[in-house]
Amino acid sequence: MTRTLDGVGATPRSGVGTVVWYRPEADLELGDPDSESVDAETERERFEEAREEARDALQRERERTAERVGEEEAAVFDAHVQFLDDPQVTDGVEQRIGDGLPAEHAVERTFAGHIEQFEGMDGRMAERADDLRDVRDRLLRLLTDTEATDLTALPEGSVVFAERLTPSDTAQLDPERVAGFATVTGGRTSHAAIFARSLALPAVVGVGDDLQSVEEGETVVVDGDAGEVVVDPDEERRAAAESEDAAEVRPDPVSTADGTDIEVAANVGRPVELEGASAQGADGIGLFRTEFLFLDRESPPDEDEQHEAYVEALDAFPEGRVVVRTLDVGGDKPVPYLDLPEEENPFLGERGIRRSLGPDADLFETQLRALLRAGADGAGDLAVMLPMVTRVEEFEAAREQVEAVAADLEEEGIEYEHPELGVMIETPAAVWLAPELAERAAFLSIGTNDLTQYVEAAARGNEAVADLHDPRHPAVLRAIRQTVEAAEGTDAWVGMCGEMAGDPDLTELLVGLGLDELSMSAVTVPAVKARIEATRTDAARDLAERACAASTTDEVVALLESATETSETTPTETPQS
Amino acid sequence: MTRTLDGVGATPRSGVGTVVWYRPEADLELGDPDSESVDAETERERFEEAREEARDALQRERERTAERVGEEEAAVFDAHVQFLDDPQVTDGVEQRIGDGLPAEHAVERTFAGHIEQFEGMDGRMAERADDLRDVRDRLLRLLTDTEATDLTALPEGSVVFAERLTPSDTAQLDPERVAGFATVTGGRTSHAAIFARSLALPAVVGVGDDLQSVEEGETVVVDGDAGEVVVDPDEERRAAAESEDAAEVRPDPVSTADGTDIEVAANVGRPVELEGASAQGADGIGLFRTEFLFLDRESPPDEDEQHEAYVEALDAFPEGRVVVRTLDVGGDKPVPYLDLPEEENPFLGERGIRRSLGPDADLFETQLRALLRAGADGAGDLAVMLPMVTRVEEFEAAREQVEAVAADLEEEGIEYEHPELGVMIETPAAVWLAPELAERAAFLSIGTNDLTQYVEAAARGNEAVADLHDPRHPAVLRAIRQTVEAAEGTDAWVGMCGEMAGDPDLTELLVGLGLDELSMSAVTVPAVKARIEATRTDAARDLAERACAASTTDEVVALLESATETSETTPTETPQS
Repeated sequence: MTRTLDGVGATPRSGVGTVVWYRPEADLELGDPDSESVDAETERERFEEAREEARDALQRERERTAERVGEEEAAVFDAHVQFLDDPQVTDGVEQRIGDGLPAEHAVERTFAGHIEQFEGMDGRMAERADDLRDVRDRLLRLLTDTEATDLTALPEGSVVFAERLTPSDTAQLDPERVAGFATVTGGRTSHAAIFARSLALPAVVGVGDDLQSVEEGETVVVDGDAGEVVVDPDEERRAAAESEDAAEVRPDPVSTADGTDIEVAANVGRPVELEGASAQGADGIGLFRTEFLFLDRESPPDEDEQHEAYVEALDAFPEGRVVVRTLDVGGDKPVPYLDLPEEENPFLGERGIRRSLGPDADLFETQLRALLRAGADGAGDLAVMLPMVTRVEEFEAAREQVEAVAADLEEEGIEYEHPELGVMIETPAAVWLAPELAERAAFLSIGTNDLTQYVEAAARGNEAVADLHDPRHPAVLRAIRQTVEAAEGTDAWVGMCGEMAGDPDLTELLVGLGLDELSMSAVTVPAVKARIEATRTDAARDLAERACAASTTDEVVALLESATETSETTPTETPQS
Repeated sequence: MTRTLDGVGATPRSGVGTVVWYRPEADLELGDPDSESVDAETERERFEEAREEARDALQRERERTAERVGEEEAAVFDAHVQFLDDPQVTDGVEQRIGDGLPAEHAVERTFAGHIEQFEGMDGRMAERADDLRDVRDRLLRLLTDTEATDLTALPEGSVVFAERLTPSDTAQLDPERVAGFATVTGGRTSHAAIFARSLALPAVVGVGDDLQSVEEGETVVVDGDAGEVVVDPDEERRAAAESEDAAEVRPDPVSTADGTDIEVAANVGRPVELEGASAQGADGIGLFRTEFLFLDRESPPDEDEQHEAYVEALDAFPEGRVVVRTLDVGGDKPVPYLDLPEEENPFLGERGIRRSLGPDADLFETQLRALLRAGADGAGDLAVMLPMVTRVEEFEAAREQVEAVAADLEEEGIEYEHPELGVMIETPAAVWLAPELAERAAFLSIGTNDLTQYVEAAARGNEAVADLHDPRHPAVLRAIRQTVEAAEGTDAWVGMCGEMAGDPDLTELLVGLGLDELSMSAVTVPAVKARIEATRTDAARDLAERACAASTTDEVVALLESATETSETTPTETPQS
């Protein structure tokens, strides 16, 4: 009989297929430590061999991930290698072997203590427990000759079910063979969800323990649009999923049913995503993150290396605009050549523009030089966006820096172009200063992920406060409205580049709030463009007004649901002929 | 010749006296490690004896601090004892003694590594480096028979100069003998500054390295009002400081020159401060913190113990109101009997009302029972204030809990009283939801310390972003104005209980912003009452309007300075006859 499990949709895509459970831990059987006669020297050799093999495998996966996903994601494997070489690990294992344990038990017990230490912590610390589990299981599989489910070689039409999918897991999924995935844990901004969007893979995350009730081999529909996993679907549901056309790609800019133009752009974290962004019909890049250039290396990229990356992005959108965000790092990211402070509350620390105008001033100058040169050399229109602005003085200091760099290039006889200069609106201070910022900047781009965390005083990634991290909270909606209203009557355009912008169920609301641009994961561009074309601005404004007047997130959710129902029962005529 | 050094005034008080430099590190001389013939056994015994003596001394200081300052401050000594007993410390020292070092060098080198580890970190971690230095110096003084400057026995009229003053240092200062202090480091919310206010001691902090240029024995004026240290003052300046009358204590409620009543209340962190609050003429308690009841113990206080503390506070203000804030802890405070998560960004974590409505629900119920009973048994009017509110639902759930507790007490035949129930406005979400909260709550109290840190996305205590933690930033002023305006036309009164409320230079601005109540360190109550009486609301409103229209903190500061000059050159008639 058909059953439906609710979760969080990661992509506006549906897929149908056969469940393959991925349980890297459950398959391992260690045997009885007491029943074996243990030769310490042999066990030590077995451990060393396993460690060598694990290191080689990690190196191969690192390379594949760097190529297929990106350098930032590949860096996780470096951390795994470090755990393999950590004296606390190696000494612990060798000591336990000396105490008479076989190698696999020595590994299991040594890791147990370290994993427990990191468990119960949140965010980055909890992720280290996952990393340690990854490394432990890799060693145990080698020591017990247990084959892990090979995620690179699943039968075509597989739907992967798992407790969680780590970066190393998702890097192995082949979108040609996998029909989708569903996980017990995770939310819309979890690694797995972001990954699914970057590969346009149907995915539902955060289903909870109910997912465990689904058996290997059952047929399921993974409906990333509705956020549902349908087990044993009836013929109709199955056919709907199989025949599902992703929203038609609209390569040209779109407008609402009554003719208001809305720019729909893509968020891009690395150059390999540029082609997909273009293929999905993005009008440009609304957020080009530049961290990929700076992370996971021993020295900063020089001006020419940066110039090349920026030109590549501009050439990918010859008719469009590319908004490049200047370097946005802080104490929560390891960058060996920067003197990043260890901070008790890194999200409230020295990051973004604070570092660019402070300790990283040299880096900032180099980045601006590379950008201004790329503005002249690349095909598209360059815009530069400043992260973590809380003061008018910061914008003005950055603008002066841009002018100084332009003067230098002029003097050196190097071609350059002055970019549009704008600010991220991601701190409450920036919202309250939006009138002053809109007078000075070419544009404001609302970063809803960070804005929500500061408005609600609830850290992204902290599960204990996860329910506060909802941009549909009326306080967040009012902050967005206040930002848009502040820019009215100025020349500044107002965009949004948080996850909120890519949720088609919020498109009408965002149009109603008056945003000029929405930037999102490329895969959601077609669905959002379709929604924009189906939206009438008067109805959208009415919806936005009622949503901002709501007292609670629940009221907003109810309003959005009834708006969707209304639009579904009274279909708008498609303005495209 | 007279020289003036600028710093941050901690108290609106001036004092004159003779400089005594407190340099706990500089006096230590360890001798040459190679010139001595070392007997390891003797050195181990010397180390053990020093450790015992240090432990005894710490225990005595702990008791004195608990009595004179409070339990929370006393807890730092427990941490010091833990360092004395840490195997990493004891093993390290013993190993180095085994290597042939005399005990004092073994201590010095062992601590050096640990101190370096914690240095360069910020906030709580950096404080651990200070704690380690404290413990190291204590051991070294014992091992080298070096007398530390005895802060409890300074000559009368001493002005203590120091790089920094730790909690254990300030606990030793006798306000009868010490004329004031000045430190190189620290800000208005540093431990030393808060301590100075609680003892009404003239103090200037954060003077910077210029302070080092002042010699032992020089005569100085410490002007906590102007934030100045005047070295070798002329006769006039000296006489002014000596004859300085602190603002006259006004035991009755005050109003502005044109008759607007403003309640002036005190912030209190422990019962010993109640008497001082009353003596300084506070109308009531605007913030009674309850953490002192819960911290530094092995199990939570029971209902009767809490009831007693709340009745004591209510009895101290028979004609006034006592606003008790319910328990406000989170992952940055150690409370052994609570399962507090280790969080990567504790200021953005599970704290305040989030815990009271979640994992600490039992504790919350007990606290409400104790409060409602105290409302009936104590003399003053009870109000209860909820910390870290970001949602209307949180206020409603807490109100339901209050009603449930009242129903239980009713049924049990126990006397109780329904308190006024209000919310802290300390998150941006609460500001944007202020209209809904003001409709439901009896009052809103703006906590500017936390509000500023969330508006600016800049953690309190992180030196790297210290300049962002200024409540005179226009964004913070606009948030305050928005809160006050949201309450207009409702029955809710609006107060403020952050450090901002106790700065007399901001009183006119706050009156102009429309606050009904200001709550502050008791010592600043007389000065703020005097400023209120000298304020005209029309001029104050004009000042507030211009301050909110400013683009930068610097513009606000300039406005405030010109307002002060105006009021000084055209003195208002004192309304008191």
